[in-house]
Formats: sequence, structure tokens, C-alpha cells
Amino acid sequence: MSRLIKVGGAQLGPIQRDESKSSAVSRMVALLDQAHAEGCGFVVFPELALTTFFPRHYIENSDEFRAFYEQEMPNPDVKPLFEKAAEYGIGFYLGYAEVAREDDETRYFNTSILVDQTGKIVGKYRKVHLPGHAEYDPERTFQHLEKYYFEPGDVGFPVWRTMDGIFGMCLCNDRRWPETYRVMGLQGVEFVALGYNTPATNSQKPEEGPEERLFHSDLSVQAGAYQNATFVAAIAKAGVEDGNHLIGGSIIVHPSGQIMARAETEDDELIVAECDLDDTVFYKKTIFDFARHRRPEHYGRIVDQTGVILPE
Amino acid sequence: MSRLIKVGGAQLGPIQRDESKSSAVSRMVALLDQAHAEGCGFVVFPELALTTFFPRHYIENSDEFRAFYEQEMPNPDVKPLFEKAAEYGIGFYLGYAEVAREDDETRYFNTSILVDQTGKIVGKYRKVHLPGHAEYDPERTFQHLEKYYFEPGDVGFPVWRTMDGIFGMCLCNDRRWPETYRVMGLQGVEFVALGYNTPATNSQKPEEGPEERLFHSDLSVQAGAYQNATFVAAIAKAGVEDGNHLIGGSIIVHPSGQIMARAETEDDELIVAECDLDDTVFYKKTIFDFARHRRPEHYGRIVDQTGVILPE
Repeated sequence: MSRLIKVGGAQLGPIQRDESKSSAVSRMVALLDQAHAEGCGFVVFPELALTTFFPRHYIENSDEFRAFYEQEMPNPDVKPLFEKAAEYGIGFYLGYAEVAREDDETRYFNTSILVDQTGKIVGKYRKVHLPGHAEYDPERTFQHLEKYYFEPGDVGFPVWRTMDGIFGMCLCNDRRWPETYRVMGLQGVEFVALGYNTPATNSQKPEEGPEERLFHSDLSVQAGAYQNATFVAAIAKAGVEDGNHLIGGSIIVHPSGQIMARAETEDDELIVAECDLDDTVFYKKTIFDFARHRRPEHYGRIVDQTGVILPE
Repeated sequence: MSRLIKVGGAQLGPIQRDESKSSAVSRMVALLDQAHAEGCGFVVFPELALTTFFPRHYIENSDEFRAFYEQEMPNPDVKPLFEKAAEYGIGFYLGYAEVAREDDETRYFNTSILVDQTGKIVGKYRKVHLPGHAEYDPERTFQHLEKYYFEPGDVGFPVWRTMDGIFGMCLCNDRRWPETYRVMGLQGVEFVALGYNTPATNSQKPEEGPEERLFHSDLSVQAGAYQNATFVAAIAKAGVEDGNHLIGGSIIVHPSGQIMARAETEDDELIVAECDLDDTVFYKKTIFDFARHRRPEHYGRIVDQTGVILPE
């Protein structure tokens, strides 16, 4: 048996603060053209793929930062992407900043959507693990204000049956948390799409540079794939954006944990891997047969406590 | 600040089925001598370090397999190890098969102990994630009967304050399960000791050989270390034992996830790394500050279900 789907990882180079959303979308459409030429059935775009990674900027006035967010999806700016993808019969994952009016409140999320091969939005995810900080921090070499611009996602980690498989989503820092993959693994996930924007140095430890940052990114993604027997496509926005360097290193990872494709540039670049979703089956039935091997009676702390409780 | 401890990883070559426990112990004492000469304060020995990896053999009669187990610890066979370690002021971790009389039942566990620098047993762990199968399986190229010889551990994943740090333990297959490290990470663990015996080919997929098996071992250990900001020493029994090849590749891993030392042989071999337990602090206070970043309200499935529940 095989359930083949050729997957494109559409890494984006930097989107400078003054670049328009329609310009970013036209770059994505160009990558989609290339994915179509290569026979892809699914394409993964980065996190916050329509704008600069604005959480590096501290903007006090919400009227000023509101333009970074999308009220509706699709909307006129992204319509060309939806139309071209449907024309090609390519499903896709797209990250963007979402502003929603819910329960009489204005709510801001770091969001991604899963679009099937007919252009229909079949799933929406809101980033659970927001890194960084909620207030301007003069101690850092640069800001990472995700906890200021967004609230934590409120929908958990659902999965969706689509494109002849079981698909899940997460965003950026989520990939460092094994709980992310495990919650989806417990729903039988076969393909996890994730976009990221990751500074090439650690704002609190400048000597931690791009090589170490890429190592941590790969390690987390590969372990999540292997330990849950799922494909993972981790796709970056990369390069020097508003003067800040973001790592590239987009990868598509096999359920064995092995890297199938890797971006070589920090620009717009399509990586491609032929993924047989049935390659997940062997591990799911043997070493990672959760029903036979997991022991939740000993995992209570994972849910019962948030932070560390030191021993006496 | 620094809390330095030089750690020795005492990989063992094969222990054939007819080798006596006192012979195995004398090999361990020789590694301890070497560790003392190198200035180690803590030494990690493998899983089931006193005998061959007997779960590869199907033995019907419990009187026959009983000799592989220890009723008491320490006991005359291992006394030379305890005495020499105390003389040197070296703490250690040791894996062995345990038979216990509890609640009027004879119980068998795959166990490890943590011994402090005075020779006192400060902690006992019983392997939670038993791999393999409970009955003879003619489909496999070789047997892996851990579920036949042992029952799953009943003490969870405790940690202990000892040797100026917070130490935890696990065994072999536990290292592939992120829950193992996370439960200890939530107790502030700074050093995880783990021993393993890992066949060099997959008994259900013979084309998965030692290179891939080492990759999976490294990946799981490095991710567990990084994502919980802890040192991990993963130490093998290696080489061709009773005609079956076990991988070596013992490693000591830094809280950054980077490998500090790696065994190069499949024989008795000491690897050494100088570990500063304060290297755990930076990550525990920043990217993996669990109290600030974890979101247990979305992790419920990890505890609420054992096996996969597929979406509709």
C-alpha cells in the first residue's frame, strides 16, 4: 500500500516591514507555480507569512499594529493564492496574524490554516506555545514580544482528515515542546505542517548563533517526527528582515526522523519530498504502538502541574 | 557559579550467557579504577549490567531464569563494586534484574539504583516502558521478551537530591518516550542516568541496521536533554552477546542537546565528560521556563488516553 503525496516546503526570504501583503502573496504564488511544475499536492508556507515578523518591534498603539493582522480569511490580499492553489489542485498550510471579534472582545492570535485541494479551509490552529515576553525588555539585544501581540491559542492541537491522510498543525516555538506532537500523535497524525520565524541569535545569549539555533530546530522536529511516527514539514521565513537575521534551514522529515529535504538558501526557496503516508504505519504498529507501550498512570505531572516542583 | 562533576560513562562489552556475575563485576571495578584515575565523581553503568541481555532467550521455567535476577542489593556478587566506589568516593548508577517478594507475590522488574558517593543506595527505579512482547513470537528474527520477564515499573519517575544536584533515572526504551524526561523535568532534574541494551537490527525489520538504530538512540536522548535542560548519560552494553549484536554508541549529552563524549568501541570503555550542573540554569530560566510557557490545559490526551483515538 502507499498513499503518496508530493510535498513542497515553500520557504520565504525576508519580508521587510514596508513590503505589502499583496507583494508577499505574489512571491508565494511564484513558489506555488514551481510546486505545481514539480507535481506537488500540498505546500507548506511559513508562520506569519504575509508580513515581517513584527513581534520584534514594540508598537504601543494597537491602531498602528492592527494592519499586521487579518480579520477574514481568505481576503482580497490572499485571494490570488487561494485561487491559484485551487486551480492547481494543491492544498496548503499558511500562517498569519489573526484578529477576531469574539465574546465582545478583540482577540489576537498567531494562527495557521489548512486548506484542502479544492481551496476550502478545513482547519484552523492558534499557536499554543508563545515564546518571548509580554512587555518591552531593555535587557534583550532585540525584542520578541509574542506574549504582547498574541494570546495563547484556545483550540488545542486538533487534527483533520484531508488529502487521504490525517493532518495536524503547529507554529514555530510549538516545535520545541514534545507535548505538541504527542497530543497530535494520540490522534493518529500522519503529517504535521509547521511554519517558523526564528532569530539567528539568542536575544538573551548572543553567543548562541545560527549553527546552534538550527541544531535545536532540527533536533526538536526530528524527535517529534520519530517519536510519533509522523511526517513533519518545518518551513521558515528566513534571512535578514528589518535588520534582524532569521535562520532558514527548512526541512521535511520522515517518520523515521530522517531529513528528506532541506533548504540551502535564506531566500524564497521550494524544497520537495515525496511522502508516502503509509510509511507511518510500521512504527505506529511496533515500537510506537501507544496502546501497548505507553504508561499514562506515571505521566500525571505533565497535566497536573505547569511549572517545576522541586523535590524536598 | 558552577557545580562541576566529572562523569564517567562505563560502557560494557558483551556479557555472554555463561559469564558469572562476579566476572562482570570485576570488569566494572576495572572501569571504576579508570574513572578514579580520571577524577570522576559519578559513573553510569548499563541496563542489566550483571548478566547477558536474557530477554532475547525464551526460557519457560522460572526456576531456570531466576538466576538472572537479584533478590537483594547490594549482595555478595556486587559487593566489590560498592566497596571500591565508596573507597574512591564515586557515586554510581547500576541496572539489574530485580526479583521482589511484595504483597505475597513474586514480582520481577527491570531496575536501576542510584548510589551516592558514600556507597549508600539513595534511589531505586523500575523500568516503566517495557518494549517487545510477552509471548514467544516466531515472526521475529530474534526474541525481545521484556514483557514476559518483567512487569512495568510501579514507582514512576522520581528524582533525588544527591551529589549537589537533582538526579533522575530511566532505562533503555524509556529514552524514546518524551514523557520520561518531562516527568523528571517537571521536578527540576539536572542529570538523568540511563543504561541500555539495544539490538543492532530491528527484529521486525531486519533492513533497519545499527546506523539507523544509533541515530534513533542519539535523537531521543539529545531531544530529551535539550527540551528539559538536563544532562543525560546514556550508556550501553554493546557488542556481540550470545550471537546477537547490540549497538554501542554510549553518549553523555549537555543540556544544550550537544554530545560531550561518545564511545568509539563496542567493548568495555570509559567515556568522560566534565558536567557543570549549573549549565542547566540558563535554559530552565529562559526558553524552557515551564511555568511561563507550558499550557497543560491542552495536554489532556497525554494522560487521559493510552492509545490512539482517531478523528472521525
